[in-house]
Amino acid sequence: MAQYKNVETLGWIDAGTFSRSWLQMIDQTLLPVELKKPDCRSIETVWEAIKMLRVRGAPAIGIAAAYGLCIGLQPLFHDGNEPSAAEFFARLKTSHDYLASSRPTAVNLFWALDRMVSKAESLRGSLSPSQLADALLAEAKAIHEEDRQICRAIGNHGATLVKDGDSLLTHCNAGGLATADYGTALAVFFAATEQGKKIHVFADETRPLLQGARLTSWELWQRGIDVTLICDSMAALVMRQGKVNAVFVGADRIAANGDTANKIGTYGVAVAAKVHGVPFYVAAPVSTFDLTIADGSLIPIEERDPDEIRCGFGTRTAPAEVRVYNPAFDVTPAELITGIVTEHGVISPVNRENVAAMVAR
Amino acid sequence: MAQYKNVETLGWIDAGTFSRSWLQMIDQTLLPVELKKPDCRSIETVWEAIKMLRVRGAPAIGIAAAYGLCIGLQPLFHDGNEPSAAEFFARLKTSHDYLASSRPTAVNLFWALDRMVSKAESLRGSLSPSQLADALLAEAKAIHEEDRQICRAIGNHGATLVKDGDSLLTHCNAGGLATADYGTALAVFFAATEQGKKIHVFADETRPLLQGARLTSWELWQRGIDVTLICDSMAALVMRQGKVNAVFVGADRIAANGDTANKIGTYGVAVAAKVHGVPFYVAAPVSTFDLTIADGSLIPIEERDPDEIRCGFGTRTAPAEVRVYNPAFDVTPAELITGIVTEHGVISPVNRENVAAMVAR
Repeated sequence: MAQYKNVETLGWIDAGTFSRSWLQMIDQTLLPVELKKPDCRSIETVWEAIKMLRVRGAPAIGIAAAYGLCIGLQPLFHDGNEPSAAEFFARLKTSHDYLASSRPTAVNLFWALDRMVSKAESLRGSLSPSQLADALLAEAKAIHEEDRQICRAIGNHGATLVKDGDSLLTHCNAGGLATADYGTALAVFFAATEQGKKIHVFADETRPLLQGARLTSWELWQRGIDVTLICDSMAALVMRQGKVNAVFVGADRIAANGDTANKIGTYGVAVAAKVHGVPFYVAAPVSTFDLTIADGSLIPIEERDPDEIRCGFGTRTAPAEVRVYNPAFDVTPAELITGIVTEHGVISPVNRENVAAMVAR
Repeated sequence: MAQYKNVETLGWIDAGTFSRSWLQMIDQTLLPVELKKPDCRSIETVWEAIKMLRVRGAPAIGIAAAYGLCIGLQPLFHDGNEPSAAEFFARLKTSHDYLASSRPTAVNLFWALDRMVSKAESLRGSLSPSQLADALLAEAKAIHEEDRQICRAIGNHGATLVKDGDSLLTHCNAGGLATADYGTALAVFFAATEQGKKIHVFADETRPLLQGARLTSWELWQRGIDVTLICDSMAALVMRQGKVNAVFVGADRIAANGDTANKIGTYGVAVAAKVHGVPFYVAAPVSTFDLTIADGSLIPIEERDPDEIRCGFGTRTAPAEVRVYNPAFDVTPAELITGIVTEHGVISPVNRENVAAMVAR
């Protein structure tokens, strides 16, 4: 496959008029074998793309849904038609409910859809339906742009921790594909590179679903960053060999004391980093903090399908009768985390007081 | 697949006369999907089985080659024929050289073949060709039985370290399939179970070639031992959860100071075990020690085909252009090893003096 410098997870293609424009997004299920950006010109296509994980990662799903709501309104405006306000809001409601049914557990999906509907409600009566449609498209673009800004800010704060010539290590995919275009942990690598620092990255392949192999190694290679793919079990060895200056990972949820839930395997990387004196950083937006959770012991560990391990990628590799333990993530305690990079700055040392202060900013 | 209690890696099927007997062995390339024990009735079949990894593991390869040499002699004795001594030794030489060409780097292969030829040479002139053939079959059976005894002794010494109710963890496959029938690290689990201790074992799947999933989980399940398969990246988590009482692994090569080369990922397991206060044991025959090597830093680390990681089990999971680091093993320093279990006893603490004393026994 050819190498492309600029890869946007999704983008709105403006055709001059609202009703003829459309959404384009990378079909992530085809990566790393094929880079295809199918057009989404109907709400059904957007729904299917979210449902089938063609677009994944909480922020990216939210952005896709916001644009999807706009696409759901387009038929009202075809052939220069101007719907009534009642028609407009009825359609908005059915589009909202339809898209919300695509992935029932994705928090950012509901957050983005609700924000769009609230925006329309706040303008009800003061704008015409076509003006409302334009306002909603602007809101979707704002959601998109805000995510981009947050990721850039995380990247810039994180890049201050990276020196020219550093060799870094990451686990799973906290990259552009999960967000507007820049990611969280990978944003640090992109920002450092844009600042002219030459870096090398070890990407853990991240069993069982291999997001590190399929997505992270692909993203870094696409952007011309020197990347070496390793199995998860090799991370401790490359640290012992002195080949890792720092670790950067993303986060699924961060407790009030800084304990961090992230993709399974992150904890083992943090333990190895501690033993080898390698700084271990988490990069995540402030929205990842859940201050209602006092510490990591209260974060439930979800278990997934045993056949992700017994029968990965179409080949049976263990007896069907053998029991499997397949936790989707683990919790890294705050004391193993050197710092948490947010869009507002870096929390370090990681403790309850510093977390509270950063989230309150 | 049905569950079988007794699985022998290979066995000589005695049909009453030397020339009509044959070798049977598990085709390990079919595991864990199928348990087949094809007959080897020609030297070509034995050669192909070694070449194609149908039989693998240094001790098991040596045993197969010793029996293979007997099979190579059989045609001389067909239909009650009695060859001349010259014919016998000529055939022995060509059979030796042919089998030695199957896998050029397997040390036990050459060791077993040379031992067989030396045995025949030592008896030259004092026995008839048919008596020599019987003596060689007896030598092959002795090699087979000695390996069984060594593995049993390792198992018994190791089982003294296991308590009733223990939950243990292993990495890769140091099991019966690599030896006559009992293994080294897995021998400890089998012996403890035979002593009536109830144990549970976590088997790391062991990327990239998944010997833990394909062979270890299958072997333990076959023998009715409670086994849970995990990804390598989950070992640190289950230790943190307090679910692991001790780790047992095999070894590829052990230096004079006790530093141990074993399958990639072993070092990371040892680091996690140390941090969580979990005893970490190596189980290996005395023949694994290489006293010409002062310490682990002098053991070269072999790198294997990048596509084992980029393109595992028939599916492309990373871009072909992405660089890969694929070391076949790593070295665990002696200070992380609680003890080394050999057929003569347990070395603990692991240091140069204790290693020398045990090897000299």
